[in-house]
Amino acid sequence: MMYLRRMSYTSSLLPIYNQIAAQQASGKVADYIPELAKISPDKFGAHLEMLNGSGSQSVGDSHEKFSIQSIAKVFSLSLAYQLLDGKLWERVDVEPSGTPFNSLIQLELENGLPRNPFINAGAIVICDILSGLLDNPAEAMLRFIRDLSGNDSICYNIRVAASERGEGYRNLALANFIRSYGNIENDLDQVLDFYFLLCSVEMNCVELAQSMLYLARGGKNHLGQTILTPSQAKRINAIMLTCGFYDEAGEFAYRVGLPGKSGVGGGIVAVKPEEYAIAVWSPLLNEKGNSCRGMAFLEEFTSVTKSSIF
Amino acid sequence: MMYLRRMSYTSSLLPIYNQIAAQQASGKVADYIPELAKISPDKFGAHLEMLNGSGSQSVGDSHEKFSIQSIAKVFSLSLAYQLLDGKLWERVDVEPSGTPFNSLIQLELENGLPRNPFINAGAIVICDILSGLLDNPAEAMLRFIRDLSGNDSICYNIRVAASERGEGYRNLALANFIRSYGNIENDLDQVLDFYFLLCSVEMNCVELAQSMLYLARGGKNHLGQTILTPSQAKRINAIMLTCGFYDEAGEFAYRVGLPGKSGVGGGIVAVKPEEYAIAVWSPLLNEKGNSCRGMAFLEEFTSVTKSSIF
Amino acid sequence: MMYLRRMSYTSSLLPIYNQIAAQQASGKVADYIPELAKISPDKFGAHLEMLNGSGSQSVGDSHEKFSIQSIAKVFSLSLAYQLLDGKLWERVDVEPSGTPFNSLIQLELENGLPRNPFINAGAIVICDILSGLLDNPAEAMLRFIRDLSGNDSICYNIRVAASERGEGYRNLALANFIRSYGNIENDLDQVLDFYFLLCSVEMNCVELAQSMLYLARGGKNHLGQTILTPSQAKRINAIMLTCGFYDEAGEFAYRVGLPGKSGVGGGIVAVKPEEYAIAVWSPLLNEKGNSCRGMAFLEEFTSVTKSSIF
Amino acid sequence: MMYLRRMSYTSSLLPIYNQIAAQQASGKVADYIPELAKISPDKFGAHLEMLNGSGSQSVGDSHEKFSIQSIAKVFSLSLAYQLLDGKLWERVDVEPSGTPFNSLIQLELENGLPRNPFINAGAIVICDILSGLLDNPAEAMLRFIRDLSGNDSICYNIRVAASERGEGYRNLALANFIRSYGNIENDLDQVLDFYFLLCSVEMNCVELAQSMLYLARGGKNHLGQTILTPSQAKRINAIMLTCGFYDEAGEFAYRVGLPGKSGVGGGIVAVKPEEYAIAVWSPLLNEKGNSCRGMAFLEEFTSVTKSSIF
Repeated sequence: MMYLRRMSYTSSLLPIYNQIAAQQASGKVADYIPELAKISPDKFGAHLEMLNGSGSQSVGDSHEKFSIQSIAKVFSLSLAYQLLDGKLWERVDVEPSGTPFNSLIQLELENGLPRNPFINAGAIVICDILSGLLDNPAEAMLRFIRDLSGNDSICYNIRVAASERGEGYRNLALANFIRSYGNIENDLDQVLDFYFLLCSVEMNCVELAQSMLYLARGGKNHLGQTILTPSQAKRINAIMLTCGFYDEAGEFAYRVGLPGKSGVGGGIVAVKPEEYAIAVWSPLLNEKGNSCRGMAFLEEFTSVTKSSIF
Repeated sequence: MMYLRRMSYTSSLLPIYNQIAAQQASGKVADYIPELAKISPDKFGAHLEMLNGSGSQSVGDSHEKFSIQSIAKVFSLSLAYQLLDGKLWERVDVEPSGTPFNSLIQLELENGLPRNPFINAGAIVICDILSGLLDNPAEAMLRFIRDLSGNDSICYNIRVAASERGEGYRNLALANFIRSYGNIENDLDQVLDFYFLLCSVEMNCVELAQSMLYLARGGKNHLGQTILTPSQAKRINAIMLTCGFYDEAGEFAYRVGLPGKSGVGGGIVAVKPEEYAIAVWSPLLNEKGNSCRGMAFLEEFTSVTKSSIF
Repeated sequence: MMYLRRMSYTSSLLPIYNQIAAQQASGKVADYIPELAKISPDKFGAHLEMLNGSGSQSVGDSHEKFSIQSIAKVFSLSLAYQLLDGKLWERVDVEPSGTPFNSLIQLELENGLPRNPFINAGAIVICDILSGLLDNPAEAMLRFIRDLSGNDSICYNIRVAASERGEGYRNLALANFIRSYGNIENDLDQVLDFYFLLCSVEMNCVELAQSMLYLARGGKNHLGQTILTPSQAKRINAIMLTCGFYDEAGEFAYRVGLPGKSGVGGGIVAVKPEEYAIAVWSPLLNEKGNSCRGMAFLEEFTSVTKSSIF
Repeated sequence: MMYLRRMSYTSSLLPIYNQIAAQQASGKVADYIPELAKISPDKFGAHLEMLNGSGSQSVGDSHEKFSIQSIAKVFSLSLAYQLLDGKLWERVDVEPSGTPFNSLIQLELENGLPRNPFINAGAIVICDILSGLLDNPAEAMLRFIRDLSGNDSICYNIRVAASERGEGYRNLALANFIRSYGNIENDLDQVLDFYFLLCSVEMNCVELAQSMLYLARGGKNHLGQTILTPSQAKRINAIMLTCGFYDEAGEFAYRVGLPGKSGVGGGIVAVKPEEYAIAVWSPLLNEKGNSCRGMAFLEEFTSVTKSSIF
């Protein structure tokens, strides 16, 4: 029966995809840098990867690379957590952040301690931590991602990184604000270079789902190597669930019911512990910055497969 | 094996209880009203109730009633959700609220729509909704709770309610602020009377765990009657996970990994979908208002039993 | 030359009035209660009263009564200052408040101490202070205003007060919030009744200018009686200058250069120490809640007469 | 009588100085950079300069140079106002800012338009404006200050500027935040270099009082040349009164009653229009960042000489 049920996971992908693809699409493509703005709004793909090779399924544009943007913050958090374990939380908290509006005010009230590793402030601090621990953090980071996905073709997109860096005054403001509290320790320009490289990683849905499988597998990668301890993997899942969707984490937990992370490139990845990882991509974003079709797809998927963690 | 694993759930309770009871207790008892302040700080009990009668276990002061306070907001939310289904979300949102500090500012920014049903603002709006739908909301609410727990001895504590009502200027401020946006429709004094009664419910750990079992059972009570649809039950679990612990929801998800709800009386209830409900009580609170021993107990419990949802 | 200069004050009124009356009027009448909404937008009048009977001049609708609204907060502050002197500042501060948006957040940050006596929070605390010091504060307040103006016909407008009271949920929220910090000591309903009565006072421009003359006269009324000490009068002028125009105090100081106070009824009163008091009324308000024509009139007046205090 | 009265101004200086010097000093020296921290806390001096050479008086350390810090923002504002007149206000507002706490949140709510030219955000925008209008803004600025004071020995302190620049992460955050809204147009590093140079100007009390006399003289300098129009000079006085003392502008207006500006070097300058300029220096600051003895001195001075503008 377990086998049958898992089959139903993979077989459910195409009908859901067709149903949503047939609907009038809403939302708009991120346009704050030319590299993101020029993506076709019609792109739409998904990939499901079951644990332990027990199945997988691709639909639509699942083999086309896109900018994973903030989804990469799961990788940087994982690497920092692997290196520092619990000491990490002296530099960044694990609480949801309320409205984006509050990001600066909360940094001020909380003396430069970002609320969580997924808001920009927290992700910049994670990049600072990695910069202090690693000789070449950008290279080590890419190595880490490639190892997770088992795919050496994964790259940064230097043009995207440079474009965001060039206009990244808000992040420069954030970083300097944090530094004024002493919570950035390395050269700020290099930390930000790294941060923008990190966000420029390009992957397709297949690579993304496969690379995130360690979070469904108690921290082990596809070779059985320990990336994170089971406890650490659970905790990253918990942080994804409470903080992974900007100011829409509650909505995602409520509608989809899986730990996940989204990016303004239109990607969303989600994890069902001990069962699967799933990635979906459609660049049309709602006003909170999350993929409209991506959320609809995942909501339908966990509903049909009854695989919400709740 | 499933049987053995469940045995390990119940058998794990006493060792964890003994271990935590032996540690130096930190935290302090809520003292803003005399009725709460006079509780002995040494009280400590827990009760685990497995699904479908497959086991249960009590430790410590598990049969002593205490003021469940904000935990009752799960019951009021459930009743309102049963009555209104999705229309409920026109009156209250499902997002975490960030710092308590922000409650008023966020209400202002979001035009009187409370962030979620568990912050005071949201719980007051839920009471207003019930006041508009029910002839005698306080009576109907108590009926609902008694039916869930199968225990007709459950009561409001009028003295606690009156005491909180008498000093409840913050809540009066909140309620009037919300009313200025038109999001309170009934007589405000009656709505607040009901709100404070709701928070004064007294239960012991056994009753609390048993009454919450419908959220582990896909919305069905112990008689198999549908209180909520499976989808509704999942969604309440999702809201508990993201919003159930004041400004410590992320910490609880991170450390314990279960949907749950706490109250300043020192109670915490948590739910493992399709497996169990567990209640723990110790009145010593941390600075965020959550029971210190309660959180430690549940962290140890999900760790030992490997039953985090993540 | 002094004589001539003063003549030029009074003689300047009519040309300025005609010039502004001829311009297209912008702004809109306050409409949150019916009693204010029904005022004709064309009303426009002004009255200048020189010190020591050295001249006066009326133009337009200067003899028609209007609702002075927040201008009355100058009278309540004066009475409280007369009674308590410096001890008053233990209950309310003297700093500008920034955006209206911040009123609640600042109350929270500053533990219930309102920023100044002219924001609603501060004026409510002043009403509470007077309620604690006087047997019948509303009656004593009216006596005080009548004595200042030498006019026993000045009255509250019960209908306006009742109408604002009935919809005053924001002020009820503010008052309860302050009370939660212990900075309201008397029965809150009675304090708010008094507050709304205070704001309902009706005066015409002549009465308003004459009644404010004590602030130009070092605290003495028209009979030479000491209402406030010279130091106290100066200080109220300073508070009017920094806090008298909601979030437009800087703009008024910048453009007009006189201590003054406005109300949403469209009135503005301003004081040139040791020279004159001037009142102007036009109910068309800008988006900050200050009379458009009133500000334009006073800007032109201090420019022509070179009587800015700067 | 006019003569006698003016004599009383100058003759009052020494007794007030002695009285305050004899009191136990409170406050603490700014210590965020070594150059400020090493100043002796005992320094205390003042200088009064009457208009039109009708008298002057120096007391204490009035001839010792100190870092005027934010007082220099009056000079940069004056130069920008001279060059742009009213168009200046498209880039910066004239309203008090409420608590320092709100600086970033208000920038966010008001889309990068600083509240006034004296908060750091506003002063940085002024430096950006001057950088766009002048080939060598730092040189032109110094020329402007030297001309006002008639003293070519006035200099920047490069060491102070470099020290503040090196630690100026908050200002870097502010500047980048403003730039993200497009309200900084020139190279940000150069703008900040200029800003920190500006704040490093060193003057003594005599020079400071003399150089500010143009604001008491309707905009004309000691040679009778028009620096600002009379209207512009009045308006800068108005801005000093409402915004010149960080979050203590209301307190200064209330206690002293003159337009003025303070700096964390311990200097305060104040202006009585058409009468005098006065500078006082004591490096011991209160918690709001204003000189304790400076404020006490000026309060006593305007009280004794009855020269509050109110």
